[in-house]
Amino acid sequence: MARYKLTIEYDGTPYVGWQRQNNGHAVQSAIEKAGLKFCGHEITVRGAGRTDAGVHARGQVAHVDFEKQWPAQTVCDAINAYLGRADERVVIIKAEAVDDTFDARFSALKRHYLFRIINRRTPLAIERDRAVWVKRPLDEAIMHAAAQHLVGRHDFTTFRSSHCQANNPVRTLDQLDVSRSGDVVEIRAAAKSFLHNQIRSFAGTLILVGEGRWKADRVVEALAAKDRAACGPVAGPQGLYFMQIEYPTIQD
Amino acid sequence: MARYKLTIEYDGTPYVGWQRQNNGHAVQSAIEKAGLKFCGHEITVRGAGRTDAGVHARGQVAHVDFEKQWPAQTVCDAINAYLGRADERVVIIKAEAVDDTFDARFSALKRHYLFRIINRRTPLAIERDRAVWVKRPLDEAIMHAAAQHLVGRHDFTTFRSSHCQANNPVRTLDQLDVSRSGDVVEIRAAAKSFLHNQIRSFAGTLILVGEGRWKADRVVEALAAKDRAACGPVAGPQGLYFMQIEYPTIQD
Repeated sequence: MARYKLTIEYDGTPYVGWQRQNNGHAVQSAIEKAGLKFCGHEITVRGAGRTDAGVHARGQVAHVDFEKQWPAQTVCDAINAYLGRADERVVIIKAEAVDDTFDARFSALKRHYLFRIINRRTPLAIERDRAVWVKRPLDEAIMHAAAQHLVGRHDFTTFRSSHCQANNPVRTLDQLDVSRSGDVVEIRAAAKSFLHNQIRSFAGTLILVGEGRWKADRVVEALAAKDRAACGPVAGPQGLYFMQIEYPTIQD
Repeated sequence: MARYKLTIEYDGTPYVGWQRQNNGHAVQSAIEKAGLKFCGHEITVRGAGRTDAGVHARGQVAHVDFEKQWPAQTVCDAINAYLGRADERVVIIKAEAVDDTFDARFSALKRHYLFRIINRRTPLAIERDRAVWVKRPLDEAIMHAAAQHLVGRHDFTTFRSSHCQANNPVRTLDQLDVSRSGDVVEIRAAAKSFLHNQIRSFAGTLILVGEGRWKADRVVEALAAKDRAACGPVAGPQGLYFMQIEYPTIQD
């Protein structure tokens, strides 16, 4: 048995999400099908995190076991060839041979996400599936200041989906930065792990703050409430990108 | 009669191109349908330039005549509302009331285009319809140097489609700059007007130069040949963006 770490990019638009499901085509299934064509046996691709329908990835990570050992570049190129033939919007950016103690989900030290907002008067055309549109002018400095109240170790019950399956709502948020370049407002979040819908809940809440509809204090109150009902609306999945995952140095 | 200048953004992926055709849905038709719903009469939207299927625009310009005068912002918002309801990938960025001497095509002083290349080992997922993928490493400095041989007034027969309908193949190219930021290589072109497929022909040829498959001298020879057969391959439409058009100052 030979284990490989796969770093994966995908356009989440046409998928039901990362995870294999009965109700449509998932990113995980796309890679498993391509992998089967390559190696000739069933495989299971285990991702570092589930992403919802419409959410993108520039650096999702998964691990997979093959019965036979292959050069890592062969694994990458062959899976990409089959993904391309199936017209999938999924690409293996990198494949690396790893020890069988490597687990994409449990070995992760830190996960990095980006949430992209386009802030302009008119709706989006080119970026429609690639960012969330906000019409009212956003004050990104006030958003950033409000976001700092969320950084640190907290019970994030307010900011997780009612479907979240985690036993414990306490997480340590390492980074939540808001910045602007032209009409693009970016929220960058980093933590060892996140709750379901946590970043989209942050984004929806911070948008209210940036529009001036919520005072920054209300974010503090919402966090303290530990109540899902205190959260702003969950922002659209098309703005979210799973960017990068940090691991301990890999042993080849 | 009241004339308006429309500045238009579109994702060219789902369209047969700018121009109304019998074989599919065009950007022009999308706007004309939305405009009819708004004003209640048939309209003709005349663009500054035709773009091929798959080519994008961030600043295409068109003019349109309505029987009645409306506030320009109403024209913009109403057409966008109907485009949105029809799920079109087209947005009016700006509408301006203009004199009836304004003609989107014939009043244009300068047209600006961008051609986007992503230069990396693995195929594209998120950017698949938004850029052209080049696998071999590109030397953008050599591409830029070669491009300078094309700037100026020349007979561009080599670099135009065999379907080009222009009477005269002579054009004055004002700018053809190549630059890189990370794995994105951008070609920026500006001229009063372009021939059909001219920029995609430049891009395909400069890619050969950047890959080291053509010497820069061969670009000079290709230009001098005035022969379509001397051109490199025409690069894919998904890399091309119609960015901006300059006009004389508008009289409201």
